[in-house]
Amino acid sequence: MDPLRHVKPAVRDLAAYTVALPSAPVKINQNENPWDLPEAVKRRVVEKALARPWSRYPDLAPKELLEALARHTGWRSDGILLGNGSNEAIEALLRVTVGPGTKVVIPEPTFTLYALLTTILGGEPVRVPMSSPVTPRSPVTQCDEGADPSGPGRRRPLRMTFAYDVDALLAARRASGVPVTVVCSPNNPTGTSLPLADVERLCRDGDGLVVIDEAYHEFSGWTAVPLLARDPNLIVLRTFSKAMALAGLRVGYLLASPELVREVHKARLPYNLNFFSQAAAIAALEEKDALTAGVHRLVAERERLLACLADVPGVRAFPSDANFFLLECLAADPKAVFAAMLRRGVLVRDVTSYPTLERCLRVSVGTPEENDAFLRALGTALTESGMDLTSGRA
Amino acid sequence: MDPLRHVKPAVRDLAAYTVALPSAPVKINQNENPWDLPEAVKRRVVEKALARPWSRYPDLAPKELLEALARHTGWRSDGILLGNGSNEAIEALLRVTVGPGTKVVIPEPTFTLYALLTTILGGEPVRVPMSSPVTPRSPVTQCDEGADPSGPGRRRPLRMTFAYDVDALLAARRASGVPVTVVCSPNNPTGTSLPLADVERLCRDGDGLVVIDEAYHEFSGWTAVPLLARDPNLIVLRTFSKAMALAGLRVGYLLASPELVREVHKARLPYNLNFFSQAAAIAALEEKDALTAGVHRLVAERERLLACLADVPGVRAFPSDANFFLLECLAADPKAVFAAMLRRGVLVRDVTSYPTLERCLRVSVGTPEENDAFLRALGTALTESGMDLTSGRA
Repeated sequence: MDPLRHVKPAVRDLAAYTVALPSAPVKINQNENPWDLPEAVKRRVVEKALARPWSRYPDLAPKELLEALARHTGWRSDGILLGNGSNEAIEALLRVTVGPGTKVVIPEPTFTLYALLTTILGGEPVRVPMSSPVTPRSPVTQCDEGADPSGPGRRRPLRMTFAYDVDALLAARRASGVPVTVVCSPNNPTGTSLPLADVERLCRDGDGLVVIDEAYHEFSGWTAVPLLARDPNLIVLRTFSKAMALAGLRVGYLLASPELVREVHKARLPYNLNFFSQAAAIAALEEKDALTAGVHRLVAERERLLACLADVPGVRAFPSDANFFLLECLAADPKAVFAAMLRRGVLVRDVTSYPTLERCLRVSVGTPEENDAFLRALGTALTESGMDLTSGRA
Repeated sequence: MDPLRHVKPAVRDLAAYTVALPSAPVKINQNENPWDLPEAVKRRVVEKALARPWSRYPDLAPKELLEALARHTGWRSDGILLGNGSNEAIEALLRVTVGPGTKVVIPEPTFTLYALLTTILGGEPVRVPMSSPVTPRSPVTQCDEGADPSGPGRRRPLRMTFAYDVDALLAARRASGVPVTVVCSPNNPTGTSLPLADVERLCRDGDGLVVIDEAYHEFSGWTAVPLLARDPNLIVLRTFSKAMALAGLRVGYLLASPELVREVHKARLPYNLNFFSQAAAIAALEEKDALTAGVHRLVAERERLLACLADVPGVRAFPSDANFFLLECLAADPKAVFAAMLRRGVLVRDVTSYPTLERCLRVSVGTPEENDAFLRALGTALTESGMDLTSGRA
């Protein structure tokens, strides 16, 4: 008697998802929008909710939200599929395309869900490394080598950014029969964008599906959506969890050709988006100007942080097109730095388990006050780590 | 160039989900609770929502709700998995257990989602017919044959109820290697319960997983939950969409052994339950007494309706353990009856496409006023259909 034997081996082999999210006054670990929707907007949504029976199912095809999204994106409403977060949208897409042996080309490091879902569905993630500027094992030497003498007085390594290796992606697509490729742009956790010309190259090399996860696109200022009209194998994912300030309500969507959306709809669970989240998403779209202003403030803060960090010895912050950035700990143990900052009430994300990011933390851009708190906590943490190193406790 | 060729054949073969839900003043087509949560409860949830930043992710493991559910069900909180509706919970379960060729034993007629999800995952639904009392093609004769002379003056067919054929289910399980069996109890759309002794028989015949979908259990008055402690292959599904009056907010859950729940968790999307639905579910659990009173009123209304319908010639209503029942149109075309009632503002569910239910409509039990409106509309519809028959327009 072992009921667990009916669980697929690929699932049993996966490590259990462990839940250990500490809390902290300065929470810059989930790339959330630090600014909530205005109170007046929340009140409007809430009044709408009170006027509606909660005991009745939401709309099966939420017309009002779909039409608002069509206006927002410039794409046709029958080419939009709503999800309970963009996670659910990509899950539905993979469910209709990935079976045993299906190869899914995924750059790395990236958001871990793509490979996880592929594996559970019996598919095979084909991982294509990004060209990575991360300092190898001997960090101090490498950092000095990378210093840019032509820079504006700052210690800037020459190869500053991560980049997608499009030739490698194309080769992997061809070798695998190109069924599905998933690229996060800007990428979580590296902040890297895939240039539009490269999205085009991927789309026009065979008819394999190309999924661009644009969870953070607002912070980069560009989108692949205009390509949808010409490239029927392109799929764009979007979320309300970042720039749109609705992480708590789980709304995402997928943009693609109506023909493809119709197929994904077959795998989508009916009534997947509750009425309250629908109302909040509509309200957020109506507040686009205020949210866009917030995006500009965040981008300015990101650049301010990166400029400040260029003067902090012992770390390297990578440029980013998103509302977060990678921070490489050149000498100190990143886990020690993480823990020391947490003791000071600043929670960042430990990404040391990602391939090539063994020395990295991911830092979300917060409010100016939160960012200042982060800089102070980092300074103390690095000093402590230095002391720890000296005293042999690192 | 055909991007659709990357969609699995099993999905492409599925008919597209068409959306044509008419609206009507008396909406008794989705087995919803006709009574909303009390205004004061809704206000409590809304105040909680206003006090929380919407821009922040919900809890990854919603402790407060899980503990409230543990108290509610009497089952351990680490054996509970929350879903965005119970649909999502069973989807996650099937995703970790069903791959190409996996056989899933499913009685029929039943809720269509089980077979749909199985097919999309590449599995094979093994359909086991219920023993069905539905009148075959020659309805009038059959109805007369079925009349029970010993009854209390009413025209009651002898074999009144649908029933699960447990021997056939056991045989199908053994023949298929028993990986997964899904039974809806009380069953949508027949209202049939699987007796607890039969749940035990299924669970104790091999170690195959036995899923009991208890979406409507409150209306039947019993549950398989007490078996969980002894039967590690039992999985119980629950929803807040029916008795708990939260269909609009999509909350469901799965109860099973902690070991099995841990495996299903691996396939669950993180942050799948938004903070507002969590708060509403907690509030509903706190209102259990009021909701239970509503369940009793609905059950009384169901019995009143069934008693009334026993006196209506030309139809047969089937006993039910749920908040709905099947209505067989013995002579009139059920689609014509459906349309005639809709013209009078009463919307029921057309289930004529379900196997063996070619002559049936499904009617949710509503408020006393809604039920009276239904009875009036049905009377008119049947009269019209009779006229139509005479005039050859049926």
